[in-house]
Amino acid sequence: MPRFALLIEYDGTPFAGWQAQADQPSVQGAIEAALARLDPGFREGARIAAAGRTDAGVHATGQVAHADLARDWDPFRLAEALNWHLKPDPVAILAAARVDEGFHARFSALERRYLFRLIARRAPVTHARYRVWQVRNPLAIEAMRRGAAHLIGRHDFTTFRSAMCQAASPVKTLDEITIAERAIPGGHEYRFTLRARSFLHNQVRSIVGTLERVGAGAWPPERVARALAAHDRAACGPVCPPQGLYLTGVGYPRDPFAG
Amino acid sequence: MPRFALLIEYDGTPFAGWQAQADQPSVQGAIEAALARLDPGFREGARIAAAGRTDAGVHATGQVAHADLARDWDPFRLAEALNWHLKPDPVAILAAARVDEGFHARFSALERRYLFRLIARRAPVTHARYRVWQVRNPLAIEAMRRGAAHLIGRHDFTTFRSAMCQAASPVKTLDEITIAERAIPGGHEYRFTLRARSFLHNQVRSIVGTLERVGAGAWPPERVARALAAHDRAACGPVCPPQGLYLTGVGYPRDPFAG
Repeated sequence: MPRFALLIEYDGTPFAGWQAQADQPSVQGAIEAALARLDPGFREGARIAAAGRTDAGVHATGQVAHADLARDWDPFRLAEALNWHLKPDPVAILAAARVDEGFHARFSALERRYLFRLIARRAPVTHARYRVWQVRNPLAIEAMRRGAAHLIGRHDFTTFRSAMCQAASPVKTLDEITIAERAIPGGHEYRFTLRARSFLHNQVRSIVGTLERVGAGAWPPERVARALAAHDRAACGPVCPPQGLYLTGVGYPRDPFAG
Repeated sequence: MPRFALLIEYDGTPFAGWQAQADQPSVQGAIEAALARLDPGFREGARIAAAGRTDAGVHATGQVAHADLARDWDPFRLAEALNWHLKPDPVAILAAARVDEGFHARFSALERRYLFRLIARRAPVTHARYRVWQVRNPLAIEAMRRGAAHLIGRHDFTTFRSAMCQAASPVKTLDEITIAERAIPGGHEYRFTLRARSFLHNQVRSIVGTLERVGAGAWPPERVARALAAHDRAACGPVCPPQGLYLTGVGYPRDPFAG
């Protein structure tokens, strides 16, 4: 059966997360329902696999999944047909591509990239509600950067891992944490970019929640290093809420959407 | 009575526009209801005046209004109290400032600035739904810029004016139309910035709707000059929808929020 990779954008607000669940709306369920309008296998329960199983309220601008279809669709027409059937859900197929059977959206991925948007201002957020995490205290970006520097590289991230995490090992290599700041009306927005081959469950939200404590002055930056070395969930800062988190991209040995 | 200027941000989606109406939610009505929690005059029907009366679905990041209050509030506390009472409406007071009685949010204004966000891509918009106008055809930015250049300066803008417009004269001076382009996943976003002392009703949406026709290749850029010279509403391109429009700022002889 021909295999297709899908590049997917979604607003996570109305969904209980990526993963299909019996009685709750999910992004996977929405896409599989659209596929069932086009393909007999999905009417009989075929499933799609994604690079990152995002939690409830988490968004994506560059999720990747793959699907095996009965027919050899023109990729452009496949994306158009799926977008038609996905309406009015806030899920869009940005591109579809024919891939060979060795491609697996999850297991072939070499890199995941996440963005976390954090707004610091007194007045409540209006346009970006459900799309950012808001705090009211001002943040010190240089302190957050010093704290973040302790996390770069290969470490046992037990401290920054959900108790629900099913990964076989807590050892991961974090290739990048960068923080950009821009002025917005009445405050500042901080954009955290994180990049790794793979992440533990809640790792990004545990890291950003901890760095916010550093930015607020409640934690000295060095406490991040001590928390990491403790290998203890109790040493973590508060896990921040999901609505500021975006899966922005997935890297593969060869970009399936490049040509 | 002490007079206060308010710097206001709002998501226009749930509102029938700025202006208070008997039986529909309005931004003005929401702010006046919050003021009534703080001030006896507003419990008895006092009103606020704004620099720009935005239409239904139009947003603001820098609207300005003024209110006369019985008490001499600390401006920071006034903004905080209003934001508290405005919850959960998507309206935020970004700043409040004490101004002298000669200040009038509408009549003292020397300049209004608007942003219009237009997204061109095939796949439906997810995160920015209700916050941009989407078209599916690609747009030629240089053609739009050439078309826009015909509109700069002092002109009779009858062509680009709503039949409902109550302005005394159709002659306005447009100081700026600039168009910025950025790549987004699956397409491009165009940001139109317009600046004038004042605008006619629907002027920005009439101009952007016309320039989109130029960008799509349906109109040569020179047709914008002919449409302007016609002084005829029928010569205008389609008026584009409201959800991409933002009132981003108002200029005064002295910025009341400067400190």
